[in-house]
Amino acid sequence: MNFHYPNGKRYVQPKKQPSAVAKVEKKQTYSNRGMTLEDDLNETNRFYLENNIAVIHKKPTPVQIVNVDYPKRSAAVIREAYFKQASTTDYNGIYRGKYLDFEAKETKFSTSFPLKNFHEHQINHMRAVIEHGGICFVILRFSSNESLYFLPAEHLLTYWNRMKDGGRKSITMEEINLHGHPLPLGYRPRIDYIKIIDYLYTF
Amino acid sequence: MNFHYPNGKRYVQPKKQPSAVAKVEKKQTYSNRGMTLEDDLNETNRFYLENNIAVIHKKPTPVQIVNVDYPKRSAAVIREAYFKQASTTDYNGIYRGKYLDFEAKETKFSTSFPLKNFHEHQINHMRAVIEHGGICFVILRFSSNESLYFLPAEHLLTYWNRMKDGGRKSITMEEINLHGHPLPLGYRPRIDYIKIIDYLYTF
Repeated sequence: MNFHYPNGKRYVQPKKQPSAVAKVEKKQTYSNRGMTLEDDLNETNRFYLENNIAVIHKKPTPVQIVNVDYPKRSAAVIREAYFKQASTTDYNGIYRGKYLDFEAKETKFSTSFPLKNFHEHQINHMRAVIEHGGICFVILRFSSNESLYFLPAEHLLTYWNRMKDGGRKSITMEEINLHGHPLPLGYRPRIDYIKIIDYLYTF
Repeated sequence: MNFHYPNGKRYVQPKKQPSAVAKVEKKQTYSNRGMTLEDDLNETNRFYLENNIAVIHKKPTPVQIVNVDYPKRSAAVIREAYFKQASTTDYNGIYRGKYLDFEAKETKFSTSFPLKNFHEHQINHMRAVIEHGGICFVILRFSSNESLYFLPAEHLLTYWNRMKDGGRKSITMEEINLHGHPLPLGYRPRIDYIKIIDYLYTF
Protein backbone atom coordinates (compact mmCIF):
# COMPACT_ATOMS: atom_id res chain seq x y z
CA MET A 1 0.00 0.00 0.00
CA ASN A 2 1.36 3.41 -0.88
CA PHE A 3 0.99 6.41 1.30
CA HIS A 4 0.78 9.97 0.01
CA TYR A 5 2.50 12.42 2.26
CA PRO A 6 1.41 16.03 2.50
CA ASN A 7 4.67 17.21 0.89
CA GLY A 8 3.46 15.78 -2.40
CA LYS A 9 6.14 13.12 -2.62
CA ARG A 10 5.08 9.55 -2.99
CA TYR A 11 6.19 7.36 -0.13
CA VAL A 12 7.50 4.03 -1.29
CA GLN A 13 7.26 1.48 1.45
CA PRO A 14 10.57 -0.30 1.86
CA LYS A 15 10.41 -3.98 0.92
CA LYS A 16 13.15 -5.11 3.28
CA GLN A 17 14.34 -4.37 6.78
CA PRO A 18 11.08 -2.83 8.00
CA SER A 19 12.25 -2.98 11.60
CA ALA A 20 15.33 -0.87 10.83
CA VAL A 21 13.13 1.74 9.19
CA ALA A 22 10.75 1.68 12.11
CA LYS A 23 13.62 2.36 14.47
CA VAL A 24 14.83 5.35 12.46
CA GLU A 25 11.28 6.73 12.29
CA LYS A 26 10.82 6.31 16.00
CA LYS A 27 13.86 8.40 16.73
CA GLN A 28 12.57 11.26 14.61
CA THR A 29 10.92 14.11 16.41
CA TYR A 30 8.65 16.95 15.48
CA SER A 31 11.53 19.42 15.26
CA ASN A 32 13.60 17.43 12.81
CA ARG A 33 10.76 15.88 10.87
CA GLY A 34 9.23 19.23 9.99
CA MET A 35 5.77 17.77 10.59
CA THR A 36 3.01 19.37 12.57
CA LEU A 37 0.60 17.80 15.01
CA GLU A 38 -2.07 18.23 12.35
CA ASP A 39 0.04 16.38 9.76
CA ASP A 40 0.55 13.49 12.16
CA LEU A 41 -3.14 13.30 13.00
CA ASN A 42 -4.09 13.42 9.33
CA GLU A 43 -1.70 10.55 8.66
CA THR A 44 -3.06 8.63 11.61
CA ASN A 45 -6.61 9.09 10.36
CA ARG A 46 -5.58 8.02 6.86
CA PHE A 47 -4.02 4.91 8.37
CA TYR A 48 -7.24 4.15 10.28
CA LEU A 49 -9.29 4.66 7.11
CA GLU A 50 -7.06 2.58 4.84
CA ASN A 51 -6.96 -0.24 7.38
CA ASN A 52 -10.71 -0.06 7.91
CA ILE A 53 -10.30 0.72 11.62
CA ALA A 54 -12.22 3.99 11.86
CA VAL A 55 -13.52 6.82 9.65
CA ILE A 56 -12.22 10.07 11.13
CA HIS A 57 -11.64 13.31 9.23
CA LYS A 58 -10.44 16.77 10.05
CA LYS A 59 -13.02 19.40 9.25
CA PRO A 60 -11.93 22.07 6.76
CA THR A 61 -10.83 25.44 8.18
CA PRO A 62 -13.93 27.65 8.31
CA VAL A 63 -13.59 30.61 5.99
CA GLN A 64 -15.97 33.53 5.38
CA ILE A 65 -15.85 34.13 1.63
CA VAL A 66 -16.45 37.76 0.63
CA ASN A 67 -15.34 38.04 -2.98
CA VAL A 68 -14.90 35.47 -5.75
CA ASP A 69 -13.58 35.96 -9.29
CA TYR A 70 -14.87 33.73 -12.08
CA PRO A 71 -12.24 33.96 -14.80
CA LYS A 72 -13.22 32.54 -18.20
CA ARG A 73 -12.20 28.94 -18.78
CA SER A 74 -10.48 28.56 -15.42
CA ALA A 75 -11.32 27.80 -11.82
CA ALA A 76 -13.07 30.32 -9.57
CA VAL A 77 -10.60 32.31 -7.46
CA ILE A 78 -11.48 33.49 -3.98
CA ARG A 79 -10.09 37.04 -3.81
CA GLU A 80 -11.24 38.09 -0.36
CA ALA A 81 -11.98 35.83 2.57
CA TYR A 82 -11.47 35.77 6.32
CA PHE A 83 -10.78 33.08 8.86
CA LYS A 84 -13.79 32.31 11.03
CA GLN A 85 -13.78 30.77 14.47
CA ALA A 86 -14.79 27.12 14.40
CA SER A 87 -18.09 26.34 16.13
CA THR A 88 -17.15 22.74 16.84
CA THR A 89 -14.01 20.68 17.35
CA ASP A 90 -11.71 19.94 14.41
CA TYR A 91 -11.96 16.17 14.17
CA ASN A 92 -14.90 13.80 14.16
CA GLY A 93 -16.06 10.52 12.76
CA ILE A 94 -17.08 6.99 13.56
CA TYR A 95 -15.40 4.14 15.42
CA ARG A 96 -17.21 0.83 15.93
CA GLY A 97 -20.57 2.49 15.31
CA LYS A 98 -19.91 5.17 17.91
CA TYR A 99 -19.61 8.88 17.30
CA LEU A 100 -16.11 10.12 18.08
CA ASP A 101 -15.09 13.76 18.42
CA PHE A 102 -11.86 15.47 19.40
CA GLU A 103 -9.72 18.57 19.34
CA ALA A 104 -5.91 18.78 19.23
CA LYS A 105 -3.99 21.66 20.78
CA GLU A 106 -0.40 22.43 21.60
CA THR A 107 1.42 24.70 24.02
CA LYS A 108 4.95 25.99 24.55
CA PHE A 109 4.45 25.88 28.31
CA SER A 110 6.05 22.98 30.12
CA THR A 111 4.38 22.88 33.54
CA SER A 112 0.71 23.38 32.65
CA PHE A 113 -1.70 23.52 29.71
CA PRO A 114 -3.42 26.93 29.33
CA LEU A 115 -7.19 26.71 28.91
CA LYS A 116 -7.20 29.75 26.62
CA ASN A 117 -6.34 27.28 23.84
CA PHE A 118 -10.03 26.35 23.85
CA HIS A 119 -13.03 28.48 22.99
CA GLU A 120 -16.32 28.58 24.82
CA HIS A 121 -18.31 27.16 21.87
CA GLN A 122 -15.86 24.27 21.50
CA ILE A 123 -16.38 23.47 25.17
CA ASN A 124 -20.15 23.69 24.70
CA HIS A 125 -19.89 21.40 21.70
CA MET A 126 -17.90 18.83 23.70
CA ARG A 127 -20.45 18.98 26.50
CA ALA A 128 -23.26 18.33 24.01
CA VAL A 129 -21.38 15.40 22.44
CA ILE A 130 -20.91 13.79 25.87
CA GLU A 131 -24.58 14.34 26.74
CA HIS A 132 -25.59 12.55 23.54
CA GLY A 133 -23.37 9.57 24.30
CA GLY A 134 -20.40 10.27 22.04
CA ILE A 135 -16.72 9.66 22.73
CA CYS A 136 -15.07 13.03 23.22
CA PHE A 137 -11.50 13.92 24.11
CA VAL A 138 -8.61 16.30 23.50
CA ILE A 139 -5.07 15.60 22.37
CA LEU A 140 -2.66 17.90 24.19
CA ARG A 141 0.87 18.44 22.94
CA PHE A 142 3.70 20.01 24.90
CA SER A 143 6.18 21.28 22.32
CA SER A 144 8.87 21.83 25.00
CA ASN A 145 9.46 18.10 25.42
CA GLU A 146 7.30 16.84 22.53
CA SER A 147 5.02 14.86 24.77
CA LEU A 148 1.43 14.07 23.83
CA TYR A 149 -1.53 13.27 26.07
CA PHE A 150 -5.05 11.97 25.52
CA LEU A 151 -7.42 13.67 27.97
CA PRO A 152 -11.11 12.64 28.08
CA ALA A 153 -13.25 15.76 27.54
CA GLU A 154 -15.08 15.10 30.83
CA HIS A 155 -11.90 16.15 32.67
CA LEU A 156 -11.33 19.16 30.44
CA LEU A 157 -14.87 20.30 31.32
CA THR A 158 -14.08 19.98 35.03
CA TYR A 159 -11.03 22.25 34.68
CA TRP A 160 -12.97 24.64 32.46
CA ASN A 161 -15.68 24.92 35.12
CA ARG A 162 -13.04 25.49 37.78
CA MET A 163 -11.73 28.43 35.74
CA LYS A 164 -15.29 29.75 35.28
CA ASP A 165 -15.68 29.59 39.05
CA GLY A 166 -12.64 31.83 39.43
CA GLY A 167 -9.99 29.11 39.65
CA ARG A 168 -6.75 28.67 37.74
CA LYS A 169 -6.70 29.23 33.98
CA SER A 170 -4.75 26.10 33.16
CA ILE A 171 -4.49 22.36 33.78
CA THR A 172 -1.43 21.43 35.80
CA MET A 173 1.01 18.76 34.68
CA GLU A 174 0.05 16.73 37.77
CA GLU A 175 -3.60 16.79 36.73
CA ILE A 176 -2.72 15.76 33.19
CA ASN A 177 -0.64 12.88 34.55
CA LEU A 178 -3.54 11.89 36.78
CA HIS A 179 -6.40 11.94 34.24
CA GLY A 180 -4.59 11.92 30.91
CA HIS A 181 -3.00 9.08 29.00
CA PRO A 182 0.40 9.48 27.37
CA LEU A 183 0.37 9.04 23.60
CA PRO A 184 3.77 7.83 22.41
CA LEU A 185 4.70 8.96 18.91
CA GLY A 186 4.73 5.82 16.77
CA TYR A 187 5.53 4.83 13.24
CA ARG A 188 2.23 3.70 11.77
CA PRO A 189 -0.03 5.07 12.98
CA ARG A 190 1.82 8.08 14.31
CA ILE A 191 -0.57 8.89 17.14
CA ASP A 192 -2.52 5.77 18.03
CA TYR A 193 -5.36 7.35 19.99
CA ILE A 194 -7.73 4.48 19.14
CA LYS A 195 -5.65 2.28 21.45
CA ILE A 196 -6.58 4.55 24.38
CA ILE A 197 -10.24 4.47 23.36
CA ASP A 198 -10.18 0.65 23.32
CA TYR A 199 -8.70 0.78 26.81
CA LEU A 200 -11.16 3.34 28.19
CA TYR A 201 -14.47 2.36 26.61
CA THR A 202 -16.39 -0.85 26.28
CA PHE A 203 -18.15 -1.58 23.00
CA MET B 1 -35.84 31.30 22.80
CA ASN B 2 -34.49 33.54 20.07
CA PHE B 3 -33.37 32.27 16.74
CA HIS B 4 -30.66 33.92 14.66
CA TYR B 5 -31.38 33.72 10.98
CA PRO B 6 -28.60 33.70 8.43
CA ASN B 7 -29.63 37.13 7.15
CA GLY B 8 -28.29 38.62 10.35
CA LYS B 9 -31.66 39.83 11.58
CA ARG B 10 -32.82 38.71 14.95
CA TYR B 11 -36.02 36.71 14.83
CA VAL B 12 -38.43 37.64 17.56
CA GLN B 13 -40.81 34.84 18.28
CA PRO B 14 -44.38 36.12 18.42
CA LYS B 15 -45.94 35.83 21.85
CA LYS B 16 -49.51 35.36 20.62
CA GLN B 17 -51.28 33.43 17.90
CA PRO B 18 -48.52 30.90 17.29
CA SER B 19 -50.83 28.69 15.26
CA ALA B 20 -51.61 31.49 12.81
CA VAL B 21 -47.90 32.12 12.32
CA ALA B 22 -47.27 28.44 11.81
CA LYS B 23 -49.91 28.35 9.10
CA VAL B 24 -48.37 31.26 7.22
CA GLU B 25 -44.91 29.70 7.47
CA LYS B 26 -46.18 26.38 6.20
CA LYS B 27 -47.55 27.96 3.06
CA GLN B 28 -44.19 29.53 2.24
CA THR B 29 -42.06 27.79 -0.34
CA TYR B 30 -38.43 27.87 -1.39
CA SER B 31 -39.12 30.25 -4.27
CA ASN B 32 -40.85 32.91 -2.23
CA ARG B 33 -38.87 32.49 0.97
CA GLY B 34 -35.52 33.07 -0.73
CA MET B 35 -34.02 30.29 1.38
CA THR B 36 -31.82 27.52 0.12
CA LEU B 37 -31.85 23.85 1.03
CA GLU B 38 -28.65 24.52 2.98
CA ASP B 39 -30.31 27.35 4.96
CA ASP B 40 -33.19 25.08 5.87
CA LEU B 41 -30.90 22.26 6.94
CA ASN B 42 -28.79 24.65 9.02
CA GLU B 43 -31.93 25.89 10.74
CA THR B 44 -33.11 22.35 11.29
CA ASN B 45 -29.77 21.40 12.84
CA ARG B 46 -29.84 24.51 15.04
CA PHE B 47 -33.33 23.47 16.17
CA TYR B 48 -32.08 19.97 17.00
CA LEU B 49 -29.13 21.42 18.91
CA GLU B 50 -31.14 24.00 20.88
CA ASN B 51 -33.72 21.40 21.81
CA ASN B 52 -31.06 18.88 22.76
CA ILE B 53 -32.28 16.38 20.17
CA ALA B 54 -29.09 15.85 18.16
CA VAL B 55 -25.72 17.49 17.48
CA ILE B 56 -25.36 17.81 13.71
CA HIS B 57 -23.25 20.39 11.89
CA LYS B 58 -22.47 21.23 8.31
CA LYS B 59 -18.76 20.99 7.57
CA PRO B 60 -17.14 24.18 6.28
CA THR B 61 -16.56 24.46 2.52
CA PRO B 62 -13.07 23.10 1.82
CA VAL B 63 -10.80 25.81 0.49
CA GLN B 64 -7.18 25.63 -0.65
CA ILE B 65 -5.55 28.78 0.70
CA VAL B 66 -2.69 30.08 -1.46
CA ASN B 67 -2.02 33.62 -0.31
CA VAL B 68 -2.81 35.46 2.92
CA ASP B 69 -2.23 39.12 3.79
CA TYR B 70 -1.53 40.07 7.40
CA PRO B 71 -2.33 43.77 7.61
CA LYS B 72 -1.18 45.56 10.77
CA ARG B 73 -3.77 45.79 13.51
CA SER B 74 -6.49 44.01 11.52
CA ALA B 75 -7.61 40.53 10.64
CA ALA B 76 -5.70 38.34 8.19
CA VAL B 77 -7.16 38.53 4.68
CA ILE B 78 -7.10 35.54 2.35
CA ARG B 79 -6.17 37.02 -1.04
CA GLU B 80 -6.00 33.89 -3.15
CA ALA B 81 -7.78 30.63 -2.53
CA TYR B 82 -9.57 27.93 -4.51
CA PHE B 83 -12.55 25.69 -3.88
CA LYS B 84 -11.55 22.09 -3.25
CA GLN B 85 -13.68 19.02 -3.74
CA ALA B 86 -14.98 17.68 -0.45
CA SER B 87 -13.63 14.27 0.51
CA THR B 88 -16.62 13.41 2.68
CA THR B 89 -20.28 14.33 2.91
CA ASP B 90 -21.33 17.79 4.10
CA TYR B 91 -23.21 16.95 7.30
CA ASN B 92 -22.39 14.75 10.24
CA GLY B 93 -22.87 14.44 13.95
CA ILE B 94 -24.43 12.42 16.71
CA TYR B 95 -27.97 11.25 17.43
CA ARG B 96 -28.69 9.05 20.44
CA GLY B 97 -25.06 8.01 20.67
CA LYS B 98 -24.96 6.96 17.03
CA TYR B 99 -22.85 8.48 14.30
CA LEU B 100 -25.01 10.13 11.66
CA ASP B 101 -23.81 11.28 8.25
CA PHE B 102 -25.57 12.73 5.24
CA GLU B 103 -25.38 14.72 2.04
CA ALA B 104 -28.02 17.02 0.55
CA LYS B 105 -28.38 17.56 -3.18
CA GLU B 106 -30.88 19.14 -5.52
CA THR B 107 -31.82 18.80 -9.16
CA LYS B 108 -33.90 20.69 -11.72
CA PHE B 109 -34.95 17.42 -13.32
CA SER B 110 -38.44 16.24 -12.50
CA THR B 111 -38.53 12.57 -13.49
CA SER B 112 -35.22 11.29 -12.12
CA PHE B 113 -32.28 12.25 -9.90
CA PRO B 114 -28.93 12.35 -11.79
CA LEU B 115 -26.12 10.49 -10.04
CA LYS B 116 -23.55 12.99 -11.30
CA ASN B 117 -24.58 15.10 -8.30
CA PHE B 118 -22.39 12.78 -6.23
CA HIS B 119 -18.64 12.23 -6.39
CA GLU B 120 -16.83 8.93 -6.18
CA HIS B 121 -15.09 9.82 -2.88
CA GLN B 122 -18.41 10.84 -1.30
CA ILE B 123 -19.82 7.46 -2.28
CA ASN B 124 -16.74 5.72 -0.86
CA HIS B 125 -17.14 7.70 2.34
CA MET B 126 -20.81 6.68 2.66
CA ARG B 127 -19.87 3.05 2.07
CA ALA B 128 -17.25 3.25 4.85
CA VAL B 129 -19.73 4.89 7.25
CA ILE B 130 -22.25 2.10 6.67
CA GLU B 131 -19.54 -0.56 7.15
CA HIS B 132 -18.64 0.99 10.50
CA GLY B 133 -22.25 0.95 11.67
CA GLY B 134 -23.23 4.58 11.15
CA ILE B 135 -26.53 5.99 9.94
CA CYS B 136 -26.01 7.33 6.44
CA PHE B 137 -28.46 8.86 3.99
CA VAL B 138 -29.02 11.55 1.37
CA ILE B 139 -31.61 14.29 1.20
CA LEU B 140 -32.74 14.78 -2.40
CA ARG B 141 -34.56 17.89 -3.48
CA PHE B 142 -36.49 18.32 -6.73
CA SER B 143 -36.66 22.07 -7.35
CA SER B 144 -39.30 21.63 -10.08
CA ASN B 145 -42.02 20.78 -7.55
CA GLU B 146 -40.08 21.53 -4.35
CA SER B 147 -40.34 18.01 -3.05
CA LEU B 148 -37.79 16.50 -0.68
CA TYR B 149 -36.89 12.87 -0.08
CA PHE B 150 -34.83 10.98 2.49
CA LEU B 151 -33.02 8.10 0.80
CA PRO B 152 -30.93 5.66 2.89
CA ALA B 153 -27.38 5.57 1.50
CA GLU B 154 -27.63 1.79 1.04
CA HIS B 155 -30.04 2.40 -1.85
CA LEU B 156 -27.92 5.18 -3.33
CA LEU B 157 -25.00 2.73 -3.38
CA THR B 158 -27.13 0.18 -5.23
CA TYR B 159 -27.95 2.72 -7.97
CA TRP B 160 -24.35 3.92 -8.05
CA ASN B 161 -23.17 0.34 -8.60
CA ARG B 162 -25.77 -0.14 -11.32
CA MET B 163 -24.31 2.92 -13.11
CA LYS B 164 -20.77 1.55 -12.65
CA ASP B 165 -21.95 -1.69 -14.24
CA GLY B 166 -23.05 0.25 -17.31
CA GLY B 167 -26.62 0.96 -16.21
CA ARG B 168 -28.57 4.24 -16.11
CA LYS B 169 -26.91 7.35 -14.71
CA SER B 170 -29.83 8.38 -12.53
CA ILE B 171 -32.37 7.19 -9.99
CA THR B 172 -35.90 7.13 -11.36
CA MET B 173 -38.81 8.80 -9.58
CA GLU B 174 -40.38 5.35 -9.16
CA GLU B 175 -37.28 4.09 -7.37
CA ILE B 176 -37.22 7.14 -5.12
CA ASN B 177 -40.88 6.60 -4.28
CA LEU B 178 -40.14 2.95 -3.55
CA HIS B 179 -37.07 3.34 -1.30
CA GLY B 180 -37.18 7.01 -0.30
CA HIS B 181 -39.27 8.75 2.32
CA PRO B 182 -40.95 12.08 1.57
CA LEU B 183 -39.79 14.93 3.81
CA PRO B 184 -42.55 17.53 4.11
CA LEU B 185 -41.31 21.09 4.61
CA GLY B 186 -42.32 22.07 8.14
CA TYR B 187 -42.17 25.10 10.37
CA ARG B 188 -39.83 24.10 13.21
CA PRO B 189 -37.85 22.16 12.33
CA ARG B 190 -38.00 22.89 8.61
CA ILE B 191 -36.82 19.47 7.44
CA ASP B 192 -37.49 16.93 10.18
CA TYR B 193 -35.21 14.12 8.99
CA ILE B 194 -34.78 12.77 12.55
CA LYS B 195 -38.42 11.63 12.38
CA ILE B 196 -37.52 9.33 9.47
CA ILE B 197 -34.49 8.02 11.39
CA ASP B 198 -36.69 7.19 14.37
CA TYR B 199 -38.98 5.32 12.01
CA LEU B 200 -36.23 3.41 10.21
CA TYR B 201 -33.76 2.55 12.96
CA THR B 202 -34.05 0.98 16.36
CA PHE B 203 -31.95 2.38 19.22
